[in-house]
Amino acid sequence: MASASKTEADLLESGAPVDDSRAFRRTLGQYPTGVTVVTAMDDGQPIGMAVNSFAAVSLEPALILWSIRRQSAAAQAYSQASHFAVNILAADQLEISQLFGAPNPDRFGQISWSPGTYGSPLIAGAIAQLQCRLDAVHDGGDHLILVGHVDHYARFAGEPLVFSQGQYAVTHDYPADESADQSPPASSCDSSFLRLLSSADHHLSSRFQAERDQLGMSVSAARILSRLREAPLDHNALQQETFLGAETVEDTLTELTHRGLTGPDEQGRLVLTKVGQQQAELLSERAAAFTARSLGNISEADVATTTRVLESLIPHR
Amino acid sequence: MASASKTEADLLESGAPVDDSRAFRRTLGQYPTGVTVVTAMDDGQPIGMAVNSFAAVSLEPALILWSIRRQSAAAQAYSQASHFAVNILAADQLEISQLFGAPNPDRFGQISWSPGTYGSPLIAGAIAQLQCRLDAVHDGGDHLILVGHVDHYARFAGEPLVFSQGQYAVTHDYPADESADQSPPASSCDSSFLRLLSSADHHLSSRFQAERDQLGMSVSAARILSRLREAPLDHNALQQETFLGAETVEDTLTELTHRGLTGPDEQGRLVLTKVGQQQAELLSERAAAFTARSLGNISEADVATTTRVLESLIPHR
Repeated sequence: MASASKTEADLLESGAPVDDSRAFRRTLGQYPTGVTVVTAMDDGQPIGMAVNSFAAVSLEPALILWSIRRQSAAAQAYSQASHFAVNILAADQLEISQLFGAPNPDRFGQISWSPGTYGSPLIAGAIAQLQCRLDAVHDGGDHLILVGHVDHYARFAGEPLVFSQGQYAVTHDYPADESADQSPPASSCDSSFLRLLSSADHHLSSRFQAERDQLGMSVSAARILSRLREAPLDHNALQQETFLGAETVEDTLTELTHRGLTGPDEQGRLVLTKVGQQQAELLSERAAAFTARSLGNISEADVATTTRVLESLIPHR
Repeated sequence: MASASKTEADLLESGAPVDDSRAFRRTLGQYPTGVTVVTAMDDGQPIGMAVNSFAAVSLEPALILWSIRRQSAAAQAYSQASHFAVNILAADQLEISQLFGAPNPDRFGQISWSPGTYGSPLIAGAIAQLQCRLDAVHDGGDHLILVGHVDHYARFAGEPLVFSQGQYAVTHDYPADESADQSPPASSCDSSFLRLLSSADHHLSSRFQAERDQLGMSVSAARILSRLREAPLDHNALQQETFLGAETVEDTLTELTHRGLTGPDEQGRLVLTKVGQQQAELLSERAAAFTARSLGNISEADVATTTRVLESLIPHR
């Protein structure tokens, strides 16, 4: 049996949720999810919010659920609406997720949508739309659990948007060589060059991440430092440009400020402190050293050729 | 605003769930999830099952939920147990997911685990372990919704296993060039070669998938055909070697058999029919043609160099 390779050394944090709700939230964030926008009509106006607590429940009857924070301004509207719709976002709808994840007066003016049978907005470009009748509301601590009966489903071609470990992501085919027992390639229908590219990408990314972990630097911290190294930014811009979730940005900034790496400038934007600047440079040097080491046995000419080939595979904008 | 690029042409299927529960299940499968193994003690014996209906609910109190099929043999045990544990599986624990997704007499003898405070098995190598007290059981149609109060959490380093669109997958950093409005790279801390590799991989994969979609061939159908082209296999082996979920394999085989592409041999294993053989060869030719076209402007020598460089980045087994 593979795995079980993790040891006590891989433990990042543990405890009782009541003692550290942020650490508990980070632990829950280990579970990857899709991103949905749940919509409804409230007093003749469309409402919508980004939700990643969606779960399938039952096939017959067709039931799904999601949770809403009791203190959310829209909690009453959703729990009293007769209908709602769940739009499962595609990988290229990150901006719609961000739009519906923050307060915004005119969300529906910025996207393409149409009303479903009972009025709930169906978002164009989603990979699935579920039109639901509210079936039950259960107590869920600081949230309400809303169970919906699906009256109508629609499935569209496309890949899903993923939220995992506090950041946006996309899915990637399971790497055929990940699991030691399974030597034959998962899909010999794939072009062999594509499979090779995918495998090299996966291995190099994993090794780079392990290296960053050893620096005691989370992905989110590394991204924020590197972004702020380029220019001061406000919270919103930082969130959009790092592909991190709002809570992750908030938590990471708290930590970075606590460590004396970031702070506000006169205009209230976030900037690196002198120590933060040094840390960001160190990270950048480490990344360069990692590349150099990974490509160590390969001649400069071959690296240049490979770089040129890879660049030619990316569409120009 | 990006997206909304999908049109009516991208609609794959739609309707009322009551008319086609498989199509409804496929639509639910558009939502990517992690994979957990939920464990408990039943009469002094450890029990466990693979679950992807997990969802976070509440921070204070710390609540999570998951659903179990009423007709499942273990439904009574879980709904009457005072405690259970949720193990969020790592990317390299695919085999554990498969082990706990099918009936198996000695699952716990095949993995490394230890009992939590109330006995529920904690699986070594998981990226998170949640020790829960059963808090409530709600009606969920053909399922029961189990809400647990988390007494203890543990978070470990590692990447999550993903289940999406009927198949196992891993996460991949959000591609910086996916969203047209966001030109700066998400993380200039990453090595630039790594970023280039990742971007080339993402673009080529997406284009290949679009090509396969045009053939009217799902990923699952393509994988099964290509695998059976190599050798006859039984259901179990097919599931393990294609990284597809059990229900996906079942549905896809039904469809392929219906289309006259697959059938059983004398020993009850699955084989390709003559038409199936032709279809598999067509797919393989298309893949080769795709590669040739993608690499069309690149000299043979450069492709050979790139192949050699990419191969050197993959650890040898």
